[in-house]
Order: sequence, then structure tokens, then C-alpha cells
Amino acid sequence: MPAANLQDVVAEIAAEMKARDDRGDVATYIPELGRVDLQQFAIAVIEKDGTLTEGGDCDSFFSIQSVSKVFTLTLALGLAGDRVWNRVGREPSGSRFNSIVQLEYEKGIPRNPFINAGAIAVTDLILSGHQPREALGEILRFMQFLSGEDSVYIDKAVAASEERTGFNNRALANFMKGFGVIDNPVEYVLGVYFHHCAIAMTCRQLAKAGSFLAHLGQNPATGHSVVTPERARRINALMLTCGHYDGSGEFAYRVGLPGKSGVGGGILAIVPGKASVAVWSPGLDASGNSHLGRIALEKLTARMGWSIFGSPLSASR
Amino acid sequence: MPAANLQDVVAEIAAEMKARDDRGDVATYIPELGRVDLQQFAIAVIEKDGTLTEGGDCDSFFSIQSVSKVFTLTLALGLAGDRVWNRVGREPSGSRFNSIVQLEYEKGIPRNPFINAGAIAVTDLILSGHQPREALGEILRFMQFLSGEDSVYIDKAVAASEERTGFNNRALANFMKGFGVIDNPVEYVLGVYFHHCAIAMTCRQLAKAGSFLAHLGQNPATGHSVVTPERARRINALMLTCGHYDGSGEFAYRVGLPGKSGVGGGILAIVPGKASVAVWSPGLDASGNSHLGRIALEKLTARMGWSIFGSPLSASR
Amino acid sequence: MPAANLQDVVAEIAAEMKARDDRGDVATYIPELGRVDLQQFAIAVIEKDGTLTEGGDCDSFFSIQSVSKVFTLTLALGLAGDRVWNRVGREPSGSRFNSIVQLEYEKGIPRNPFINAGAIAVTDLILSGHQPREALGEILRFMQFLSGEDSVYIDKAVAASEERTGFNNRALANFMKGFGVIDNPVEYVLGVYFHHCAIAMTCRQLAKAGSFLAHLGQNPATGHSVVTPERARRINALMLTCGHYDGSGEFAYRVGLPGKSGVGGGILAIVPGKASVAVWSPGLDASGNSHLGRIALEKLTARMGWSIFGSPLSASR
Amino acid sequence: MPAANLQDVVAEIAAEMKARDDRGDVATYIPELGRVDLQQFAIAVIEKDGTLTEGGDCDSFFSIQSVSKVFTLTLALGLAGDRVWNRVGREPSGSRFNSIVQLEYEKGIPRNPFINAGAIAVTDLILSGHQPREALGEILRFMQFLSGEDSVYIDKAVAASEERTGFNNRALANFMKGFGVIDNPVEYVLGVYFHHCAIAMTCRQLAKAGSFLAHLGQNPATGHSVVTPERARRINALMLTCGHYDGSGEFAYRVGLPGKSGVGGGILAIVPGKASVAVWSPGLDASGNSHLGRIALEKLTARMGWSIFGSPLSASR
Repeated sequence: MPAANLQDVVAEIAAEMKARDDRGDVATYIPELGRVDLQQFAIAVIEKDGTLTEGGDCDSFFSIQSVSKVFTLTLALGLAGDRVWNRVGREPSGSRFNSIVQLEYEKGIPRNPFINAGAIAVTDLILSGHQPREALGEILRFMQFLSGEDSVYIDKAVAASEERTGFNNRALANFMKGFGVIDNPVEYVLGVYFHHCAIAMTCRQLAKAGSFLAHLGQNPATGHSVVTPERARRINALMLTCGHYDGSGEFAYRVGLPGKSGVGGGILAIVPGKASVAVWSPGLDASGNSHLGRIALEKLTARMGWSIFGSPLSASR
Repeated sequence: MPAANLQDVVAEIAAEMKARDDRGDVATYIPELGRVDLQQFAIAVIEKDGTLTEGGDCDSFFSIQSVSKVFTLTLALGLAGDRVWNRVGREPSGSRFNSIVQLEYEKGIPRNPFINAGAIAVTDLILSGHQPREALGEILRFMQFLSGEDSVYIDKAVAASEERTGFNNRALANFMKGFGVIDNPVEYVLGVYFHHCAIAMTCRQLAKAGSFLAHLGQNPATGHSVVTPERARRINALMLTCGHYDGSGEFAYRVGLPGKSGVGGGILAIVPGKASVAVWSPGLDASGNSHLGRIALEKLTARMGWSIFGSPLSASR
Repeated sequence: MPAANLQDVVAEIAAEMKARDDRGDVATYIPELGRVDLQQFAIAVIEKDGTLTEGGDCDSFFSIQSVSKVFTLTLALGLAGDRVWNRVGREPSGSRFNSIVQLEYEKGIPRNPFINAGAIAVTDLILSGHQPREALGEILRFMQFLSGEDSVYIDKAVAASEERTGFNNRALANFMKGFGVIDNPVEYVLGVYFHHCAIAMTCRQLAKAGSFLAHLGQNPATGHSVVTPERARRINALMLTCGHYDGSGEFAYRVGLPGKSGVGGGILAIVPGKASVAVWSPGLDASGNSHLGRIALEKLTARMGWSIFGSPLSASR
Repeated sequence: MPAANLQDVVAEIAAEMKARDDRGDVATYIPELGRVDLQQFAIAVIEKDGTLTEGGDCDSFFSIQSVSKVFTLTLALGLAGDRVWNRVGREPSGSRFNSIVQLEYEKGIPRNPFINAGAIAVTDLILSGHQPREALGEILRFMQFLSGEDSVYIDKAVAASEERTGFNNRALANFMKGFGVIDNPVEYVLGVYFHHCAIAMTCRQLAKAGSFLAHLGQNPATGHSVVTPERARRINALMLTCGHYDGSGEFAYRVGLPGKSGVGGGILAIVPGKASVAVWSPGLDASGNSHLGRIALEKLTARMGWSIFGSPLSASR
């Protein structure tokens, strides 16, 4: 079977997704996110040679929310190395993104860096020895560097909305602080956390920013080495097992790619050795992942033979 | 970087593993398994063209225990199709292999088919409308067919040992029965379950039996199509996210392959598009997975560039 | 305020309870119990001087179910003394009668002797060194001795009904067996447990049987000393804190007496120093306690000033 | 058996407790409490006729900590009536004082008003429509009124110590706020909570303050009616089932009185119809209750025949 043509596939998916009636529901627990237009959909694919294939609303900026956790983990591993793993585990949680139950049973150590508690602990490591403003600046510059675009920004209205309503995250952070897992003042850590979740970028920018994960740690467009090959593989492994909270198994089963979703409706997915993919549609499914985003990725992987669990292309080699 | 030579790599790994002092501990909760010689180690790799590369004690038969769950799931999917997913979920459990807590919170539906409760529910589906002896015969013949060898057998002493001491599995099965998740009489289901866990085979046979999972559902040696490509990918995805109980994230992080371990010390690992690998060493680590088996797979994947999360080979293409 | 007249109060309560429309629902999880006539209600009070005051269907035999746990605990304390507390705790569980969650977290030790797991562990202690038939005979004779009536019997149809459907109890027993908390074969222990739960007696007999708990361990009618004063007080304390599963706090709050309920619709309540009370009505509330039985006890306590948490009588002395 | 003489019994207990070597350990999680002299012990008993019998360090002021929860519940019931029970349950928790697990499973509704989460929810009700300073003033004046002494005060150093380290309580409050169970700003609620826990008084004052609970809601010394008889009984019932966290069953079993302990080492115990008892010794046992305080109460109840579960006095009447 010859590989399908990526441009055709992306165009068909974008057209279908724009037209579908089932669009999911916008997140309401962060009020500011509730205002986004449900009709939007975007997809951007960057291949190894730098070719960009895109469809839909790829000029729209959206709130990347938890997709930012992939990048703060990358930063923290660069700053603290394997000390990160003294503060946070590497196992799927089997629980919702904001569950506090396991924190009590496991003495304040979050299961992995992609649930809220884990990402807050990672933010605490990035903050160490800095003012919140400095740490946040570092995270933002990292995103601008990875995407190669200065227009990536922090949406302060979204951050403020979450600061007003983020009681559950405040509970998680204080709970970890009580166990000594958080070093810095809780409000400092949460300030940085709420703001890095409020980073706004386009699908095109997000696909570029994730590109190093598809290519053994090196951004093929710029030639910059971001992390070692081993670290890139390991971040991908964590995205596969833990990237979608209590829907991680389902995403692996249906899509078959490492991925990380956010409640803003964005998903970053990695096709190791081939491509970095970003999709965005603000309506969410019951697990809090982008409804159309997940469907689009499932179709893309099936059509392109990109599942890491068995590809018709490698089979026919 | 050119690919390492598989024969050399396998020989080096086998030699190192035979020589190491750290060998883990044999499982003691099934008394019969406690008698196995800790010095043994075996590795067998079958590539797409049928080439077999092996090292260590590849003529030794061992109890495959939970590795059998991959094959009973395959059988049950063939018999019942997606009805399997009415009885068992597809998410990592975040808990030990024999935890009963989630069963209570989730009304008797096990998280996935690779924890004990899930595999017992799968066995119940295979049993439907059969006598235990018939169902067990079907499972055994399936293993003999997949491995192409009639010498695969059921070790009745091991099965009897587990029947005498398997109180926890009896609790799980009765608990599910109370929720109506098990149709057949509990003792029938457990009889089949204990016996299929007691299947004994060699590493060579196990690698052959798993070969269809590496090649889109088709055994390349025989040309037999066992399952559809999509189903093969999905079973691999489940092995990746759920194959090692509460050590699944760690295995994905370190080894980077779909795999399934058993307390007999065997592990089956799949390199999609490339190879099926079986390793065996009876000493276990704290999570109940083969200590040297896991290390051997980690070395094999690193040396051969076989991680599904990023390969130097695809990168250099 | 002068004490109300007990005969008048009991007669009024019996008349009101017979007439009420809200009668609860019969237990359905033990099919045989589902056949009982919902219209029935009985109340029997035995005071210190042996005076019996009764109303309603006091000649009807009913299945005492979990009320039997008070008596098996009493027997086991006589046989094994404080060794009982190595097998079972003394704290309220905060969970349903058949929860298995805490058993996993607490290594197979049930929270208290009045949840199912705890009562099964107590039955195992009574069984030690006996055949099931002997142990069961001992329990039955103890009930006949305490009530002073040979007509107390074991309803074999109810026991058989529970043996056919008691999967949850089978799960609990096997789970404890896996932790080494149960000594005897699981089926022996459950056989005795299901049969002692199926003891059938009248309200009059039950009130007599519990009389020793109201009078420092001594049955005032016969003068027989059953347990020491300290032990009687302690059994009453356990009934108060643990006698109604996850409705124990509510019963203490509303009724204010030590009590133990059963899904057959019976409740035994103790007024220390004054009286032993049995009520029975087969319809249950959402917590599995007799709906009208609880209301009757609340009215009786309020009218007679019998709450252990403050009595108008002692106040006016 | 004639009743023992209360003066002799109290004197003997005070002497024994002062002399014992096993004194428990001071709480360290509130640093300020760690400085208290372990050698101290006090006991004060106030009978119905107002007779005060005391022994040990009855002039020492100590931090009543969680004993204050009895009084804030009393206040909140006066202010909000049974609406209190929309925010907090009435069942024992079976968990530690600061567990957050049940809050997640039960949507932010604490099990009872005597665990930390429950007391915080009660404080939120008292705060409604007030400034923190006003609410705190009301609580303090209530304690001064009940004890009849203006010297009862709030130890600001203790409150400040807890404000600096109370991360777990901050987690609980934010978690409930996320579920909408808390109306006021979290820091306001916690400010009042930390300060009412820091109320300092003597054993004599505490015994007086609790006196209304022993006498159907009326303080016999002053004749003031504080609550209705029914409410007094119900508060006592809650103290019996929930007053000592996961040691409530044990306290009922050994002491046999409604009681409430605090980590400052104080315990208030109620003998309905007879007396109000306060004991204090700063060393705690493993459950966080005063080690010598509990032993003193056990001896007092046994010697005086005061258990609510059966009294030799009522038996001999």
C-alpha cells in the first residue's frame, strides 16, 4: 500500500472537522476559556524536512493550557536533570487530572509530570532561585525559541481567570507543600503555573515547538539540539502513557502516538522520526480532551500509517 | 550511526546476564515457582524474515504466567469482538496486579485485560458455552499453533500450586461475580485461568508465538493472519500502557517497547515492523517483573535503536 | 417531667407503625428475604425486673441476619479473649457493610466485628478446632440459652439462598485468607457464617437474648452471668460506634442507644441499666437498616427519656 | 458497690499522672505547641450542683485546639440550625484528622464537624456576613460566657505558628471551596479557624464551658440555657462517634464517654446527667490524643462507674 498524500489527507480532515455537528463542549471551569468559538478547528503538521502542511484556522491563537507541561518538563529536566524524579513519578495515575487521592496515599509525590499536581511540582523546580517573573520569562522565551516566533504570548486574562477560580490547584499545591514536596511559596509557584498554562500560540507554532521530540531532540528546521536523543524518547514515552490523564490508554489505543492535550482544546502529537502534529478545536469530550482534535489525529494516523504500534509502511518495506 | 549487529548484541547481552550477581528474587506466592534455578537466562529474537537469534537457556521451559494474558485477550477478541470492552476497560490501573480497590469503585469492571481481574474476566468470555476442559484445550492449541510447536504444555504442578494458594484471585473473581461481570461459575473460570497461566514454553517458542503482533497481525514465518492490522496495533498499545501493572510507565520510559511480563520471569516484547523478542530470567524486581529480563530488553533496544519513541535509524534515513 | 408509661408508649408506637404507609423496601440481594410481608411490625421491651412489654407481631419469626454478629462476638470473646482484637479492629469503618477497600489498605484486618468482613473473621475464631456443624450447633445453643427458648432455629432456606448468591462475602473471606487472617477453609467459615445469619427468632426472644448487655453482663431474668461488666460495656460501645455500618453516626444521633441492625429488618437496642429492646419490620431504608424499626426506636427513646446522651429523668433527679 | 468518693479518685489520678514516666510526645506539626512542658497534668470535674473537684496544674492555660470544634459547632447550630447538615455529615470518617481522600469521593462534604475539614466548613458558616475579626470575637465571647471567666484568650503566637505551617488545612479549605462548600474567602475562613483553635484556657474553665452538655443544654451553675435538650444530646452523640478521629472507636471502647480531644493535649468529656470533665497533659499518643489524658479518663470512668454503656450504680438501684 503506497502512503497516502499528506496534503490531501490534511485537507480532507480539515474540511470534515469544520463541517461536523458534534463539536464537544468548551471547558467552563476556567470562565475565560468558555468564550471561545466552538466552530474553530486547526491542524498543522511539520515533517522532518521542515515541510509544513496545514488546514483550518492555523492563524488563530489559543490557550495551550496543559500542553505547556511537556515544555516545562523539558526545561526542568535541563535545569535539574534526574532530580526531577525525586519530586514526581513516571507512572500513569489512573485518575482525573486534578485528583488529590493518590497524593495522600503517596506522601505528596505526584504520579507523573502531566497531571496537575506533577506539573505544579515541576514548576516549583523551574522557579528555584528565581522570582516568578523571571521564571515565567524563561518559560515564555523557551516557547518562542522552540517555535521560532516572537508572537507567542501569555494571555493575562486567561491567567487571571484561573487565578480567581483555581481552588483545586491551590489545594494540590498546599497539600504537596505540607509534605515538603514544594520548596517555593505556594502563591509564587501557582502564579507561574497559571501563567504558563495561559500561553497562547497557533497550531503552526505549536507543531514547530514540538518538532524536536519527533527527531531525537533536535529541531530539524533550525538544527538546534534541545535535548539528548534518550531524553526525547523518554518524554515521548511519558506522553504516551500519561499524556491524557484517565484517557491515556484510550488515546494510545485509538491514535497510537505520544500526545499531550490541554483543556483549551489543543493537542500536540509526535510521530517519531517523521513529524510533529498540532491540532486544535475548543470543544472537549467527557475526559477533557479536544473532541474533534482526537478524531482528527485518529484519522490522520490511520490514513498515513503513522501509529507507533505498527505501520503498513514498515510492513511493506 | 549504522545499526548494531543483532547477533553480536544478543550474544553480549546473554553473556553479561549469565554473569551478573544481581538476579532478583523468585516469586514465592506461588510455591511451585519458588523452586526454579535463579541462574537461568534466555533471550530469543525473531525478525520479520523469520531469522531467529538466541542466547542463553533457550531450551528451558518456563511458566509464562501473565504473559498468557496477551494471548487470551487475542482469543477473546476473536470470539467476542468488541463485546470484550463491555467487561473490561483499556486504561492503566496505577495499582498492583491484584488490587481490588478499583473494582469496588468501578462496579466490578476491571481497568484493563492485563491485571488479574481483567484477565479473569477475559477468561470468562472464552469459557462461555464451553466446559473448562474444552476452553483450556482451545487456549493450549492456540499457543501451539502460534509457536508452531506441539511441545508447549500446561504444567499441572504449577496450576495445582496456584489453585491451593490463589485466594486473592478467588476474591477478585467472586467480587466481579457479585457485580454480574462474570457469567460462568467462579471455580470453572479460575480453573481455566490458573491453568492457562501455567502454560510452559521456551523463549524461542514465546518469541514465535508473539510474532504476529510485530507484523500487523500476520505471522511472517507461516503467513497465517491471526488478527487484523488494526487489532494488532491496539493490542500493542494496551501492552505499552498496561503490560507491567504499576511498573508500566517505567517500562515504557526505559525500554520503549510494548511488552508483557509474568511472575515466572518471562517477558514478551514487540518491535513493530521489526521483531518479536522473548526474554526469561526467574528473578523478579520489586514490581514483580523479571529483573534481568527488563535490563536485557533495555540494552537490546538501546543498542539496536528499536525504541518506538524515536530510532536513530529512522532519524538517519 | 415524670417518665412516660412504657405500656402506653409501646402500644402507641406499635399502632402507628402498623398504620404507616412508608414501610421501606425488603432486601433483595438475599432472594429468600424478599418474600417477607412488608406489613409486619413488632416491638418487645424487657426491663430489669423481667417485665416484658410488647406490641405488634411478636410471635413472628424473622431472620436476624447481622444482629447475630453481636452474639458471635460475645461467644468469640469468651473463647479467645482479647486475641479477637488481633484479627479485627474496633473503629467505625465509614464504609458500606460489604466494602473491601479498607481490607486492602489495612492488610486484611477488618475495621470492626460488625461489618461483614469482621464478622466472618470472628466466625473463623469460633470455628477453630471444630467441624462447621459443631460450631454452628454451639452458636444456636447459645442463642437458645440466652433467649431461654428452644424454638429459636436456623432457617435453612435462607442460608441456602445466601450460599447461592453470597459472592461478595466469598470475596471478602478469600481476600482475608490471602492475608492469613482466616485460619479455617473459606467454605467452612462461610458455611457457618451464612447459617448463623439465618437464625430465626421472634422479637420477644431477641429482646431476652440481648438482656445481659443492658445489665452489666448478667441476664436479670435468669441470674446467669454471661460476660463481665466491663465486657458488656465494651460490646455496647462497639454497637454504638459500629452497629449500623455507614449509618452508625446517624443512629447514635437520632436514637442515642447502642444497637445492631440486620437486613432481615430486626434491630436490637440496649438501654444500659434499664432495658433490652428488639424491633422488627422487614422494610429497609437506603442504608440497609429497618425503616420503621429505626423510627420506632427514635420515638421510644424520646418518649421514655432513654438516650444515653442525656436523660430528662437523670436531669430531674 | 457504693460509689467511690470523687475527691479521693481525682486526687489519686492526679498524683499518679504526675508521677508516670510514659508521657507521650508533644505535637510538633504546630511548632509553637512543641515548647510546652511535658510534665504538666490537670483534671477538673464539675458536677451538677456546681461542685468543682480538681487536681494537678489547673491554673495553667493551654491551647484547646480541636476541643474548640465542639463550641463552634454549638454556635453554628444556633446561627444556621439544621442548615449546618447541608455542609457537613454526621458519620465517623474512619480516617485521620486531616485526610482529604473522602472529600474527593464525597464532593467536598466533610464527614463530620469534628475532623478538620468539617470544622473549617462550620467556621465558614459562623463567618457568614461578618468580618473575620467580628466572627472571632463572637467565638471568644461565647467561650468566656460559657466558662464564666474573661481570662480566656486567644494565643496569637500559636495562631501565627499555625498560619505559617497550616498547608494541609489550606489544602482542605481550597478543595472544599472548589466544590462550592465554602462561601467566604479561604484566607478569611482559615484566619478565624486558626485563631479559634488557638484559644487558651485552664482545665477548670474548660470543664465549666462544657457543663451545658452534661445537663440537657443548661449550665447548672448559671441556669443559662445554651441549647435545647435534644441538641445537647445530639452533640454528645457526635462527640462519642466522631470526637477522636480514627481513634473514636477506641475511646468509646475504653472510656465510654462522649469526648473531644485537641492536639494541645486537652480533652473534654461529658458524663450525661452527672458531670463535665476536662483533662490536660500535652504529650500525645500515636492517634494524636493526650496520652495521660485518655488514661486519666479511663480510670475516672471505671472508678466512678460513669460509663454511659452500663453503670454499676444504675445496676444496683
